[in-house]
Amino acid sequence: MNKTLLTDLYQINMMYAHYKNGKLNQQTVFDLYYRTNPGQSGYAIMAGLEQVVEYICQLSFTEEDIAYLRSVERYDENFIDYLKQFRFTGEIYAVPEGTVVFPHEPLLRVKAPIGEAQLIETAVLNIINHQTLIATKASRITEAAGGGLVMEFGLRRAQGPDAGVYGARAAFIGGVQATSNVLAGKKFGIPVKGTHSHAYVQSYPSEYEAFLAFARTFPHNCILLVDTYDTLNSGVPNAIKTFKKMKEELGDKFKNYGIRLDSGDLAYLSKAARKMLDEAGFEDAIIVASSDLDEYLIRDLRAQGAQIDAWGVGTNLITSRDCPALGGVYKLVAEEENGRLVPKIKVSENPQKITNPGYKKVVRFYDRNSKQALVDLIMLEEEPIPTESFIAFDPVNTWKRKTVENFEARELLAPIFKNGELVCELPDLTEIQRYAQREKERFAPEIRRLINPHVYHVDLSHQLWELKHRLLSQAKQLRT
Amino acid sequence: MNKTLLTDLYQINMMYAHYKNGKLNQQTVFDLYYRTNPGQSGYAIMAGLEQVVEYICQLSFTEEDIAYLRSVERYDENFIDYLKQFRFTGEIYAVPEGTVVFPHEPLLRVKAPIGEAQLIETAVLNIINHQTLIATKASRITEAAGGGLVMEFGLRRAQGPDAGVYGARAAFIGGVQATSNVLAGKKFGIPVKGTHSHAYVQSYPSEYEAFLAFARTFPHNCILLVDTYDTLNSGVPNAIKTFKKMKEELGDKFKNYGIRLDSGDLAYLSKAARKMLDEAGFEDAIIVASSDLDEYLIRDLRAQGAQIDAWGVGTNLITSRDCPALGGVYKLVAEEENGRLVPKIKVSENPQKITNPGYKKVVRFYDRNSKQALVDLIMLEEEPIPTESFIAFDPVNTWKRKTVENFEARELLAPIFKNGELVCELPDLTEIQRYAQREKERFAPEIRRLINPHVYHVDLSHQLWELKHRLLSQAKQLRT
Repeated sequence: MNKTLLTDLYQINMMYAHYKNGKLNQQTVFDLYYRTNPGQSGYAIMAGLEQVVEYICQLSFTEEDIAYLRSVERYDENFIDYLKQFRFTGEIYAVPEGTVVFPHEPLLRVKAPIGEAQLIETAVLNIINHQTLIATKASRITEAAGGGLVMEFGLRRAQGPDAGVYGARAAFIGGVQATSNVLAGKKFGIPVKGTHSHAYVQSYPSEYEAFLAFARTFPHNCILLVDTYDTLNSGVPNAIKTFKKMKEELGDKFKNYGIRLDSGDLAYLSKAARKMLDEAGFEDAIIVASSDLDEYLIRDLRAQGAQIDAWGVGTNLITSRDCPALGGVYKLVAEEENGRLVPKIKVSENPQKITNPGYKKVVRFYDRNSKQALVDLIMLEEEPIPTESFIAFDPVNTWKRKTVENFEARELLAPIFKNGELVCELPDLTEIQRYAQREKERFAPEIRRLINPHVYHVDLSHQLWELKHRLLSQAKQLRT
Repeated sequence: MNKTLLTDLYQINMMYAHYKNGKLNQQTVFDLYYRTNPGQSGYAIMAGLEQVVEYICQLSFTEEDIAYLRSVERYDENFIDYLKQFRFTGEIYAVPEGTVVFPHEPLLRVKAPIGEAQLIETAVLNIINHQTLIATKASRITEAAGGGLVMEFGLRRAQGPDAGVYGARAAFIGGVQATSNVLAGKKFGIPVKGTHSHAYVQSYPSEYEAFLAFARTFPHNCILLVDTYDTLNSGVPNAIKTFKKMKEELGDKFKNYGIRLDSGDLAYLSKAARKMLDEAGFEDAIIVASSDLDEYLIRDLRAQGAQIDAWGVGTNLITSRDCPALGGVYKLVAEEENGRLVPKIKVSENPQKITNPGYKKVVRFYDRNSKQALVDLIMLEEEPIPTESFIAFDPVNTWKRKTVENFEARELLAPIFKNGELVCELPDLTEIQRYAQREKERFAPEIRRLINPHVYHVDLSHQLWELKHRLLSQAKQLRT
């Protein structure tokens, strides 16, 4: 399905107004960023860039699209001709997928004729908002699970097919090791996992017969769901009986087996089941848990000594239930006038909503010895990156200052498109996941805490801060 | 994109276990239903059936799919052959889209060989859960807006492209009159609407120039966003100046105009703006509001006399933010044994999770005079529908009884597929929206209240109630 019409009508109407006023090809710069971390998180994990690239590359109005647009509004024929030949000709820089990111940092910087920059706004926000949200949730859930295996099981509760498929992709970037979603497995090479359902057990005359049939079918990968009738009085004993029978039949060729708990108190049941399994000699049987899990419940269950080896997480992950939208925005920050880029600001009564003007970059400073991230600096593109010690200051509470020294610096925004051409190779998904993991380890655990995390410093360079305040004063004078 | 692999791996693994045990073609009946209404709602609006039909009709494993499945598990060649020729051959009954529905009512009833019934579970739940959720949210929001125009503006915050596109469809079923989503407009014929953004205003030397350029481009449909600089001191005065200029230029040919408020206190600003517009002689200018709206805020703004004619609702609608997942489930309720359907029950410590067994129907009883819905009855398919007065009783608190008389009865489940063939014509979307509106009006306002609604009665027929309790006792004996 061509996605060129995956946009808000107002984008096309603004393009038309710009066309009517001879401004359609004016160069502009837009920043995509978000203002607050999702839910209680102290950070987010950038995701969705690959789908943005696919979207940009396929941009082109079909004849059907044009016919539809004609039915919406009586556009000039010249404008229709413009749409017919439309493709993206601009520049896009982006933060790589898997990067730990923070509020107000440009995740994507688009420099393009205003018509193009406007058309793509909606779809680009849709993709980045969604995948970054789910990658962040997955990162928190896998953090809570310690080293335990986390599997994404949410397809049936996802907000439509794409939310399931791209949600599984984002969850993998955030750190889950597998998905139940077969299409996501095929499309992205994510390992797929699955057990069986209650209906499966019900469809046999007895639980034991159901288990044995399943074990004989999957002797190398046999996780039995034990709560169809009664976990401790029926399910676990029947699973043990099945494991014994299979060991008799196959010996050590019966392997990778265990049980899944899907209801009841998972701390209590997992400890009791572990004891029963161990006493029967099945110390290597694993215990998988599912049932309304999220990062908070996983943390609490582990704190209570739950004997759970693997976690199947559904609804709360795939919808990011406690915060189902990342509020990413896309704001005009510069415009070309007489051949040079002029910074633009959007004022607001709400200081959080005032934009950072200009054509900018984001630089992350790491301690040279500990390799830990120290501070991020949003700077104007033309500014040199500090090589010696410098003083970073909080852009709101400017008396909060910190000397940054002995650092390695790294620019976060990398070129993706130039003159409309893709100029980078996209990493594969496993590489992105590994990069995300490495990146996260370079941030103090305090910043990754599930609730009330320490706030990581994202400061403005002195030059950017001054530009912002100068433009704010000008805007204020303009209005009074 | 073929969606046959849009399923959980465990479905395919269960199919394989059933195949290994010669059970793959055993006839089964599954019910799709949910257990609690989304959020604070007293009902839900069924949606998604058209996409379920499209999904069922396209079911077929491609060669690529087969190759992928071979890489996942070493399935028997006979099973692979089964997959290669797989198509849906069963029966599906469903509640029409737009119907007001309640917990525990089968929304979809699938009778099919177990292999087919299992494969489709995940995608069917995904589609119905998503669209029913959003249609319900939209219904609540339009109810709160009274007769005011409600527009869906959420694409940029939706959970991926499908969530935007099918969410817009579901929102239209629930009652919104337009969407900003152009692709949804093209695909489903939903009216599309749009204004302009802050960036549009910023890209002109002054707000007035931006407004005038826009008004001249869209003289028949000109809504100006007035909060880029200062709503009451700059935006509204410049809008009025623009309207005056346009009236001078075009007279009555300048029409369908107004302003949009996107920040600040919408009650205060809309009243102040209304006064300014009226005093300038623009009584017919409409006021559109957007900015984190949901049903509760709309209700409160209206209660405070906000002068808002149209509502643009984004994130809170498209993600159903306060409840981003409907917990629809799909449960085995009967299985063929020796040529006849045997009812099955799933027991649970949690009474809410015990299933209603058997091959069933849902009947809605309306008062013959007032046409208001009185009670729904879940019955066994073979039971005759009452034609005379009968006593309905609460399935939990059985002493709560109510004599139902002078009624018209209507079955909610209608045939969609028989022997794998589509046997119905699907209504068009406008028809579905109208039907939903009529249906809603047949339920007392108390049931549609935004919070703490009156609970509508969904009872079991006496025969079904007895069957359920007989099977429960049997299951209890089996376990002890």
